[in-house]
Amino acid sequence: MSQPLQSKKRFFTFADPSQSQEKMRLESGAELEQVTLAWESWGTLNAKKDNAVLLLHACTGDSHAAGVYEGEEKAGWWDFLIGPGKAIDTEKYFVICSNILGSCMGSTGPGSINPATGKPYALDFPMMTVGDMVEAQKKLLEHLGIDTLHAVIGGSVGGMQVLEWCARYPEKVKAAIPIATTMRHSALAIAFNEIARQAIMSDPHWNKGNYYQGEPPATGLSVARMVGHVTYLSDEAMRRKFGRKLQDKEAFSFGFDADFQVESYLRHQGSKFVERFDANALLYITKAADYFNVGERLTANSPLIDADASKKIRYLVIAYSSDWLYPTYQAKELVHTLKRSGQDVSFVEIASDCGHDAFLIPEPTLPQLLSGFLAGGENG
Amino acid sequence: MSQPLQSKKRFFTFADPSQSQEKMRLESGAELEQVTLAWESWGTLNAKKDNAVLLLHACTGDSHAAGVYEGEEKAGWWDFLIGPGKAIDTEKYFVICSNILGSCMGSTGPGSINPATGKPYALDFPMMTVGDMVEAQKKLLEHLGIDTLHAVIGGSVGGMQVLEWCARYPEKVKAAIPIATTMRHSALAIAFNEIARQAIMSDPHWNKGNYYQGEPPATGLSVARMVGHVTYLSDEAMRRKFGRKLQDKEAFSFGFDADFQVESYLRHQGSKFVERFDANALLYITKAADYFNVGERLTANSPLIDADASKKIRYLVIAYSSDWLYPTYQAKELVHTLKRSGQDVSFVEIASDCGHDAFLIPEPTLPQLLSGFLAGGENG
Repeated sequence: MSQPLQSKKRFFTFADPSQSQEKMRLESGAELEQVTLAWESWGTLNAKKDNAVLLLHACTGDSHAAGVYEGEEKAGWWDFLIGPGKAIDTEKYFVICSNILGSCMGSTGPGSINPATGKPYALDFPMMTVGDMVEAQKKLLEHLGIDTLHAVIGGSVGGMQVLEWCARYPEKVKAAIPIATTMRHSALAIAFNEIARQAIMSDPHWNKGNYYQGEPPATGLSVARMVGHVTYLSDEAMRRKFGRKLQDKEAFSFGFDADFQVESYLRHQGSKFVERFDANALLYITKAADYFNVGERLTANSPLIDADASKKIRYLVIAYSSDWLYPTYQAKELVHTLKRSGQDVSFVEIASDCGHDAFLIPEPTLPQLLSGFLAGGENG
Repeated sequence: MSQPLQSKKRFFTFADPSQSQEKMRLESGAELEQVTLAWESWGTLNAKKDNAVLLLHACTGDSHAAGVYEGEEKAGWWDFLIGPGKAIDTEKYFVICSNILGSCMGSTGPGSINPATGKPYALDFPMMTVGDMVEAQKKLLEHLGIDTLHAVIGGSVGGMQVLEWCARYPEKVKAAIPIATTMRHSALAIAFNEIARQAIMSDPHWNKGNYYQGEPPATGLSVARMVGHVTYLSDEAMRRKFGRKLQDKEAFSFGFDADFQVESYLRHQGSKFVERFDANALLYITKAADYFNVGERLTANSPLIDADASKKIRYLVIAYSSDWLYPTYQAKELVHTLKRSGQDVSFVEIASDCGHDAFLIPEPTLPQLLSGFLAGGENG
């Protein structure tokens, strides 16, 4: 048994006027100063600085994609994919993941201290977009001296960041792997995010976002997470996992206890989430996801069909058959958009009954696809 | 233009000890006294009392299936199906609809006065089941002198009541039309109901159900309705109706206003619902739907394949192609269960992009199916 991959969370701060740096101008026009990104990396940047793989995490994810922190045991959320000899091979690639702007897992977000007031921003935090997340990541890469990315890879909201990278900086991205994602939120996806936001904002503890000195809106956030969690699963997976099995009981309670296992499970998911995530951060990130609309921007700046093939981005678009948040038809729309402008696109729909969250579940298909596709670009 | 069909809400009370009546014993073992059902009827009961059609309403429906109340204009929820010369022809049939036990639209439910205390039951209301709803309806029919039903018809939770009628009293039902329904809730359906319940119970105004003297849990109930409402729609219908259209705006608010029309629509649905429905009633009815599991009971008491054909129930099972709350595969399970025991079953999947609520939307297919099927039984 080899040593587990070690990981360490680091912090990079930019847009700091006290360091004579310009403020970060967001897509909304608002400005942010002293922006910090929490980030982690695995493997070594080579001398040519061309072996970097940027991982982009999902809505409530963090920089801890792989390995374990010193003295801890819990491995990162994509540990099955990342490490020496694994699909994203840290003996070949310098793998980076940073917590997104607007989050609460180490990067600057609504719970961070506003340098102008010395208090948490709360709703004074300016609305950030997926484009702003990408701009912050670009600052980190510049800091590391990385100009070109061997690949950008991410699922869900991470996949949106992949597409935003390709739309903004096609010349910096050699290969892109958007997974379980979409070019834009459907009305259904917006609806579920809005329900989650309303659940939070209906909790009196939310107090228009000003709860950092008191109780957080735990019940609202818990309901919001339950909504999110159901959209990450699938009818089939829930039937298989829970069906109508009762929780610790032989008969119905004829009351409002959790009779069914699926009820206990969702309540548990809700409470667990409250311990690790900030309600305002969820409001901001879900809104950014709703605003996201990469559409034709994805190909407008990209080398077209008759351009130098070596300048194109190689795409591997991956969808999961039971994902009903971003169903396969949306991945196909992405593929058609890319193909219409002559991009180099591969598409795989992985058969799975695990719903949207399938990309986070260890299984053999995703590692095989990723390792083959990443290796295919090594002489590109 | 003919006169609109008139309707009038009436009330029937039973289980009244002051009238020397026995209390109503519920499936849970609990007892209820002074049970009132609000009901309406259209058409005339014939001398043989064999032309009654019982309509069963959905979760948050009421007895007002057809016609208009005196001095009002709003027609009942199935008015496009019910009336002289319509699919459920009031010149032929005596059509009855009663508000379900546990509701808040005139029948006894958690908001009703508990005769033992003189105060609203709130959570002292005993948990009732779909079977209890049917038993209460049977009392009303006995009161009207009706022993045999020409047909029982209902969608969603109304369809569950149809199936429960067939399971409990196959000898009293000549024809049954369960629409957009299921033999039992899947884990997914339970999950959405549980999220709705948690949204209500998380609202501090809910106060463990004791809010009848003060503010109701309006924000929690509104979020609960938003959850329900999304499950009644479909991805396609929402794309068609809303897509990513913005609400009264030319650009994003970069805040937490309702930017998208689908957000405003859901908020509106939530607030409207709060005006007409009681939060505790929603808790009880959703729990009854989760408990419902007719399974093999449906055929255990029914005349089997070799029995006298004239004693069988004629079934018309109707599903909608885009219903993801009770998908077509669940209707097919019902059809297979019925067919395995030799029942007389027709099955139609109506192609529609309107999701679960399609059965409430006026369109020509449902009336055609119903009128043909009902007429087919007139000499049965």
